Amino acid sequence: DRPLTVIAGPCQLESRDHAMMIAKEMARACDQAGAQFIFKASYDKANRTSLKGKRGLGIEAGLKILEEVRAEIGCPVLTDIHDAEQARIAGAVVDVIQIPAFLCRQTDLLLAAGDTGCVVNIKKGQFLAPWDMPNVADKVASTGNENILLTERGTSFGYNTLVADMRGLPEMAKTGYPVIMDATHSVQQPGGQGGSSGGQREFAPVMARAAVSLGIAGVFIETHEAPDTAPSDGPNMIPLNQMPKLVQTLMEFDRIAKDDPIRL
Amino acid sequence: DRPLTVIAGPCQLESRDHAMMIAKEMARACDQAGAQFIFKASYDKANRTSLKGKRGLGIEAGLKILEEVRAEIGCPVLTDIHDAEQARIAGAVVDVIQIPAFLCRQTDLLLAAGDTGCVVNIKKGQFLAPWDMPNVADKVASTGNENILLTERGTSFGYNTLVADMRGLPEMAKTGYPVIMDATHSVQQPGGQGGSSGGQREFAPVMARAAVSLGIAGVFIETHEAPDTAPSDGPNMIPLNQMPKLVQTLMEFDRIAKDDPIRL
Amino acid sequence: DRPLTVIAGPCQLESRDHAMMIAKEMARACDQAGAQFIFKASYDKANRTSLKGKRGLGIEAGLKILEEVRAEIGCPVLTDIHDAEQARIAGAVVDVIQIPAFLCRQTDLLLAAGDTGCVVNIKKGQFLAPWDMPNVADKVASTGNENILLTERGTSFGYNTLVADMRGLPEMAKTGYPVIMDATHSVQQPGGQGGSSGGQREFAPVMARAAVSLGIAGVFIETHEAPDTAPSDGPNMIPLNQMPKLVQTLMEFDRIAKDDPIRL
Amino acid sequence: DRPLTVIAGPCQLESRDHAMMIAKEMARACDQAGAQFIFKASYDKANRTSLKGKRGLGIEAGLKILEEVRAEIGCPVLTDIHDAEQARIAGAVVDVIQIPAFLCRQTDLLLAAGDTGCVVNIKKGQFLAPWDMPNVADKVASTGNENILLTERGTSFGYNTLVADMRGLPEMAKTGYPVIMDATHSVQQPGGQGGSSGGQREFAPVMARAAVSLGIAGVFIETHEAPDTAPSDGPNMIPLNQMPKLVQTLMEFDRIAKDDPIRL
Repeated sequence: DRPLTVIAGPCQLESRDHAMMIAKEMARACDQAGAQFIFKASYDKANRTSLKGKRGLGIEAGLKILEEVRAEIGCPVLTDIHDAEQARIAGAVVDVIQIPAFLCRQTDLLLAAGDTGCVVNIKKGQFLAPWDMPNVADKVASTGNENILLTERGTSFGYNTLVADMRGLPEMAKTGYPVIMDATHSVQQPGGQGGSSGGQREFAPVMARAAVSLGIAGVFIETHEAPDTAPSDGPNMIPLNQMPKLVQTLMEFDRIAKDDPIRL
Repeated sequence: DRPLTVIAGPCQLESRDHAMMIAKEMARACDQAGAQFIFKASYDKANRTSLKGKRGLGIEAGLKILEEVRAEIGCPVLTDIHDAEQARIAGAVVDVIQIPAFLCRQTDLLLAAGDTGCVVNIKKGQFLAPWDMPNVADKVASTGNENILLTERGTSFGYNTLVADMRGLPEMAKTGYPVIMDATHSVQQPGGQGGSSGGQREFAPVMARAAVSLGIAGVFIETHEAPDTAPSDGPNMIPLNQMPKLVQTLMEFDRIAKDDPIRL
Repeated sequence: DRPLTVIAGPCQLESRDHAMMIAKEMARACDQAGAQFIFKASYDKANRTSLKGKRGLGIEAGLKILEEVRAEIGCPVLTDIHDAEQARIAGAVVDVIQIPAFLCRQTDLLLAAGDTGCVVNIKKGQFLAPWDMPNVADKVASTGNENILLTERGTSFGYNTLVADMRGLPEMAKTGYPVIMDATHSVQQPGGQGGSSGGQREFAPVMARAAVSLGIAGVFIETHEAPDTAPSDGPNMIPLNQMPKLVQTLMEFDRIAKDDPIRL
Repeated sequence: DRPLTVIAGPCQLESRDHAMMIAKEMARACDQAGAQFIFKASYDKANRTSLKGKRGLGIEAGLKILEEVRAEIGCPVLTDIHDAEQARIAGAVVDVIQIPAFLCRQTDLLLAAGDTGCVVNIKKGQFLAPWDMPNVADKVASTGNENILLTERGTSFGYNTLVADMRGLPEMAKTGYPVIMDATHSVQQPGGQGGSSGGQREFAPVMARAAVSLGIAGVFIETHEAPDTAPSDGPNMIPLNQMPKLVQTLMEFDRIAKDDPIRL
C-alpha cells in the first residue's frame, strides 16, 4: 500500500495567485511529510444553500488556473463537475474529475465522467448507504474506466447535521477502489446557518485521524488561509497554517495503519 | 382553501396507451370524489440505483404522450426534468415542471425551471430540513415565477430508509406556497433491494391520510395496474384499482381538514 | 371500534387543587366532544435532564392526589413507575400503570407492571423500532395480563431531536393491542435547552391529528394552564385552554377514521 | 497521559472457570502489550430484547466470581447495575460500577452509584447527544465522587442500527473525565434479529482503532472464545483468540495518539 494521498485546496477558486499560494504550501507540506498531494478547487459552486452564496470564477477561468497550478507546482489537480458537458471540458484539463455527493446517482454524469478517461472521484451521497456505492461505481466502470475513487463525506443524521460512519470506509474498500475520507465536509452542518451551511472545523482532524488509522488511501481536506472570510465552506475548512502539522501527524498514523490495514 | 389536488400516475411512461389508461382511470376517480387531478409521469429515470434499471422512453417520445394525455383527458400534466435544457423543452409542453429531490439545490436547474413560467414542483431533498426549503424556493422565485409547489417525500433515516416527518408539512406551508405530500416515495427504501430500491406500499395510505388531515394542498401518489411488474418503483406504488377508494377516503379527511387547516 | 381515548394531564403533579382543576376541565372537554378520558400525571420525574430539574411530589403524596381525582372526577387515572416496588404500590391505586420510554426494555419492571393487573401502557423507547414492541409487550403478557397499550412518543433522529414515524402506529397495532399517540413528547427536543429538554408545542396538534386520522385508539397529551412556568416539559405541553377545541377537532377526524381504520 | 486501558470480558458471566479463563487470557494480552486491564462481566442482563434471552447467574453468584477473578488475576473488575440497591451490593465488591446506556438518565441510580465511592462508568444513552453527558456526570459528581468514566456505545441511527460518532469522544473529554470507546456495542444492531440483537463483529476493530487514534483513555470490548454460542451479544463480540493481536495493534496507535491527543 502506498503512502497517504492528501487531496487539499480551497473550497472555491478565488484567483490564480490564491490557488498557487495554497497549492505551493500544501505541496511543500505533503512533500516534507512523505504524503502524495492532489490540488483540489472548484470553479463553480452549483448548489449553494441560497442564491446569495458566491458561485465562483466559472469553468473557463477556473480550468485555466488549475492548468497553471498543475504546470507550476507539478501536482495532479482535481475539480468537480455538474453536467455531462462540463465533464468533457474539465476532463481535458484535470487529472481527477469529481462527482458531487448530491449528484452521485445521476447516470449521465457518471458515464460522461467515466468517458473522460480521468480518475473519477465519487462522493457518496449524504442519502446513500456505503454498500450502495458499488452500483454507483459500476456506472463509471461500465465506460471501461476503472480509475475510480470513493469518498465518504458524511451521512444525513437528523436535520442540518451529518455523521461520518467509520464502517463506511472498509465497507466501500471491499470494491477494491481506493477510499478517501473527506474530513472537512463530514463536519459540515448543511443549511445550519440559515442562508448558508455551518460547520465544526474543530472536528475535521478527528475525522481525518480516525479514518487514516484504518489504512485508507487518502484524505480530502479543504483549507484556506483565512477560513472565516472564505466565500464558501469557511466554517468547516482548516486554516492553512495548521495543515503542515496535521499532515505530519496523519502520516505517522498512516505508516502503522498501512502495515496492517483493516480489510473486511 | 380549495379541494385536495391529487398528482398521480405511473412512475415512468411505458406507452401512450398505458399512460392514457391510467390518466383516464385517475381522472374519473378524482372527478367522482371531488378532487382536482394532475397526471404525473417521467420520460427518463435519470438516477436509477443501478445501471440495470430501465430509464424510460426519452424526452421526445415522452413529451408527445404527455401532450396527448393533456389533450384527450383534459387534465394538467407534470413531469420531472434533470438539466436546464430539458426545462426549456419540457416546459413548452407540460403544466408542471418537477425538480427531483436529489437535484433540489442545483441552482441552474431551479432557475431554468422558473424561467419556463410553468408551475414548479420542488421535491425536498432527503438530506434537507423543511426550514431550508425557503432558500430553495427563492431560487425559483428570483425568476419572477412564484407558481411553486413544495413536496415532502421523506428524509434520510439511517441507511436505506426514509421517514416522513409530519412537522415538515406545516413548516413548509409557512412559505405561503402550496404543500404536497408524496405518499409513495416517502415509503421508498432507497437501494433496499441491492440493485434497486425497495418500498413499503402498505404504508403509502398511512402517509397520505396523516398528511391530508393537516389540511395540505395535495398528495402525490404513484400508481400502476400491476406494480410488481412495473419497470421502476413497483415496491412503493399503489395498485390502480385501490385508488378510487383511497381518493374518496382522502377527500373525506380533506373536507374536515380544510375547515380548520393547521397553520403555524 | 370505540371512540378516541384522550389521556391527558400535567407532566407532573403540583398540588391536589392543580390536578383537580385540570382533570375537571379535561373531563368536561372530553365529555362534550364524546371522547373517553384518562387523567395522567407523574409523582416523580426520575430521569430529568439535569439534577436541577424539579422531581415532583413523591409517590405517597402523588398517589393520594390521583386517588382523589379518580373519586371526585370519576375518571380512570394513569401514572408512570420506575421500579418494581413502585409498580406494586402505584398499582394498588391507579387504573393504568405506565412504563417510561427509557425503561421499556427493563424486564423486571415490565413483569412487575403486568403483575399488578392494571392496564399497562408501554411507551416505545426512542431507540426502538415499532416492530420490536411485540417482544416488549410479551414480557408483560407473560404475567397473564394482556391489558396492554402501546404508545408512540417519537424516535431518535440525530441529536436533541425526535421524529414521529406514522408507520409505527399501524405497525404496532398488528399486535392487536390498542395504540396511543403521545402528541406532546413526540415534539420534545431532548436536552435541547442545555440543562433541560426543549419542545415544539406548536407541532403537537400536528402529531395528534395525523395519528388520529389513521384510526388509532387514543392520544396522549400533556397540558397545563401556563406551560411556560410548568416545572417540567413546559416547551411541549399544550395550553389547557386550547384543549377543548383540539379534542373536538380530533373527534371529527376520529369518527371518519374509525369508519375505516388503517389495518396492515 | 497514561497507556490505554482495555475493559474486556464476556457479555455475561457463565461460570467461575469461564470468567477466570477469559480474565487470565486478557490480562496476559494486555500485560504483553503494555495496556492496563479491567475485567468486565454482567451478572444479570436486565433488558434483553425478548423474554427468551438468558439473563445470567444473578447478583450473588456473579459478584462472588468477580471477587475471585480480582483476587486471582489481580485486576480491577467492573460490572453493571440496574437499581440503587444493586449499586450498594455490587459497590462493595467491584472497582468499577457501570451504568447501562438505557438507564443513564435515571437520577436515583446515578446517585446510588456515586455513593458507592467506586469508579462509575456511565454509558452514553443511544438517545443522547455527547454534549448532554455533562448533565449526567453531574448527577454522579453531586455525591462527591468524581471518579467518573464516560463511554460512547453508539447512537440511534434509523431503526435497528447504531452509528458511532467520533466527534462524541473529544466532545465528552471536554468534561475532563476519561473517555472510553465501547467498540463492540457500537456495532450492535438492536433488535436486529427479531428476538435478539444482531451485530457486526467485523466492524468492532474499526471502531476501536478509529477511537484510539484520537487519544482516548480506554476501549471497552466484549470477547468470548466462541461468540456464536455465547448466551448474549454473540454477534458483536470479538473472538478471544483475536484479542492479543488487536490489543497490540491498538497500543501502537495509542502511543502516537497519546503524544498528541485531540483536545477541543
